[in-house]
Amino acid sequence: MSVTFAKGFEAAGVVAGISSQTGKQDVALVVNNGPLNAAAGVFTSNRFCAAPVQWSRKQVSDGELKAVILNSGGANACTGEEGYQQTVRTAEAVALMMHVEPSEIAVCSTGLIGELLPLDKVIEGAQKAFDSLDSSAQAGSDAAHAIMTTDTKPKTVNRLGSNEFRIGGMVKGSGMIAPQLATMLCVITTDAVVSAGQLQAALTAAVDRSFNRIDVDGCMSTNDTVLLLASGASGITPDPDEFNGLVADCCSSLARQIIGDGEGASHDIRIRVTGATSEDAALACGRAVAASNLLKCAISGNDPNWGRVVSSLGTVPADVAPYDPNEVSVTINGVRICANGGPDRDRSEVDMTLREIDIDIDLNAGESEACVWTDDLTHEYVHINADYES
Amino acid sequence: MSVTFAKGFEAAGVVAGISSQTGKQDVALVVNNGPLNAAAGVFTSNRFCAAPVQWSRKQVSDGELKAVILNSGGANACTGEEGYQQTVRTAEAVALMMHVEPSEIAVCSTGLIGELLPLDKVIEGAQKAFDSLDSSAQAGSDAAHAIMTTDTKPKTVNRLGSNEFRIGGMVKGSGMIAPQLATMLCVITTDAVVSAGQLQAALTAAVDRSFNRIDVDGCMSTNDTVLLLASGASGITPDPDEFNGLVADCCSSLARQIIGDGEGASHDIRIRVTGATSEDAALACGRAVAASNLLKCAISGNDPNWGRVVSSLGTVPADVAPYDPNEVSVTINGVRICANGGPDRDRSEVDMTLREIDIDIDLNAGESEACVWTDDLTHEYVHINADYES
Repeated sequence: MSVTFAKGFEAAGVVAGISSQTGKQDVALVVNNGPLNAAAGVFTSNRFCAAPVQWSRKQVSDGELKAVILNSGGANACTGEEGYQQTVRTAEAVALMMHVEPSEIAVCSTGLIGELLPLDKVIEGAQKAFDSLDSSAQAGSDAAHAIMTTDTKPKTVNRLGSNEFRIGGMVKGSGMIAPQLATMLCVITTDAVVSAGQLQAALTAAVDRSFNRIDVDGCMSTNDTVLLLASGASGITPDPDEFNGLVADCCSSLARQIIGDGEGASHDIRIRVTGATSEDAALACGRAVAASNLLKCAISGNDPNWGRVVSSLGTVPADVAPYDPNEVSVTINGVRICANGGPDRDRSEVDMTLREIDIDIDLNAGESEACVWTDDLTHEYVHINADYES
Repeated sequence: MSVTFAKGFEAAGVVAGISSQTGKQDVALVVNNGPLNAAAGVFTSNRFCAAPVQWSRKQVSDGELKAVILNSGGANACTGEEGYQQTVRTAEAVALMMHVEPSEIAVCSTGLIGELLPLDKVIEGAQKAFDSLDSSAQAGSDAAHAIMTTDTKPKTVNRLGSNEFRIGGMVKGSGMIAPQLATMLCVITTDAVVSAGQLQAALTAAVDRSFNRIDVDGCMSTNDTVLLLASGASGITPDPDEFNGLVADCCSSLARQIIGDGEGASHDIRIRVTGATSEDAALACGRAVAASNLLKCAISGNDPNWGRVVSSLGTVPADVAPYDPNEVSVTINGVRICANGGPDRDRSEVDMTLREIDIDIDLNAGESEACVWTDDLTHEYVHINADYES
């Protein structure tokens, strides 16, 4: 269902010939038919942010968007003034079709960095998408397919709130995934009646605990964009806590799907750090472990190598995360193989045949905890990223 | 030649049956016959530092060492009090053979984390090494072989100073290499007449610009140890600047050799950042680029992907390294393929068949620069680290 699950939205995904994969859908359009056109966005903090990020960040700042045009097959990042003009032209073209202002159109691009887009194809694709706009489940699915790059499957989410207001969303992301934030394009739609301010607060909080806590390869993208659009078409004004909770739930689901489709991954790795003196301390420890190539290789080899867990943990400065190395325990898939900083049960007891590997680290220093997700590092990851060219 | 190049030193490398590779030399001994026994050391900052690191850091703190006993085949890290006692027993055994105090013996271990050593084998190996101590080039070479783990070749260095004082050294290190410091065991010897204070100053400065500027996989070890021993046997008191320079040169050579033997590497990558506002800013940018798995995969695929250079650069906060993304240029193997933050010459002009890939990043923001080294990320790296078991 994706972005068309919520009432008041139409979408499309079409083949525009931008992607190097012949016949792949590569332009998506999501239109908000209102009555509201409230919007919020969260963007990459990368200083080399792409032209579409520069544009969309500006346009969403007034809390209003009528549509989002997205393309795969090219990131339009590091393309200078000419690239920025391509984004402007794209927004202008869509605005003209819709009889609205360009400032009401967000633009998202994903693909190779450093090359201009084939602008004619993008605009033809936008027209084709506009002509096939639909509120059907199929249209939502097409849009979710059109934004994929190295993703092996579309990633969507639907949630139903009280009185039947709806939230739906789609995301793409597989590699170049790192906190602040995960690399991806994400559009979430709702037919609830909510203000732009509420949307932004809900989205910022949700992203912080979802997309900002997954790490496929420690690499931050130039194009990350998460947009949340509200049509108000349900006429329902939701309870703020319920709404925030559902948005958080949608983001968590989509983030989890990204990990499940991490480039070349054979295991999804959940790292939970407990017993920390603060959530920030727990998070710093979790991120350090999630960033370890050595651990990620060990997991891909089905080796529950707790030595690589603690050696990563040991790189976190004591002022960031106070703990005593001699008090730390590590449990993998339920088997505590490290206690008091040394060996405990035998590593051979750990069942590594599961897709999901749960690493529980107890710092025994406090009451706070945090959870981060990553993937294992496989031959396939190297293959994909040594040969990727769009 | 390695550690026996300098006069006053004897060494040995023997097969003790600790390593899982049958017949591999796995115990090395380096003895300083004086007349001086000045020593300095630099150790890992990992909070889970191994028992031998805890022991050796303490023993070198008075600036005196008579010998270093080293083993591969087991790191003796995260092994608790029992592991620490193994280190003490090893030092005591060597001290007994040499008729000196245990506090004059440094211990170094490398291999799998989280398992106790076969102590009997270590001590038998130490005795065997003691019995075969020799000042020959072969003995130095044997020692350099005995400390190897996933290294594919021994790494040694020899330098001759004015009036023929000598410096020689050996290092092991291939994976788990990251700044602060590179993962390895390193012993450097000199027959110059220098005080422990001079040695420590020379070593700390040298390590900061060598081992602390290489990054194979971003993973910090629990066992890193660099020791510098002076016998004074040449009778020559060197010019301090010359001596410091030669120690720095030895460390740079050994660090460069580690990169040249990085696990599974097919390319050595030199990243030089110029035009920075400070050396620290340049270093932060260089480290961010060196840590990018995506870039390292691209290089292994012979793709001069400057988009992955700038997207890594863009993660460095502006207060750490002030620069304007629109002013940045990237040159790979002499071809400037990114200028003013956008495309310049075509990437197909870059010759990627060379083993060494030179990435020159000009921030155009100041006069400072720094250089860091890394390796590409290959199938072979994943293979080695998915299957490594000691």
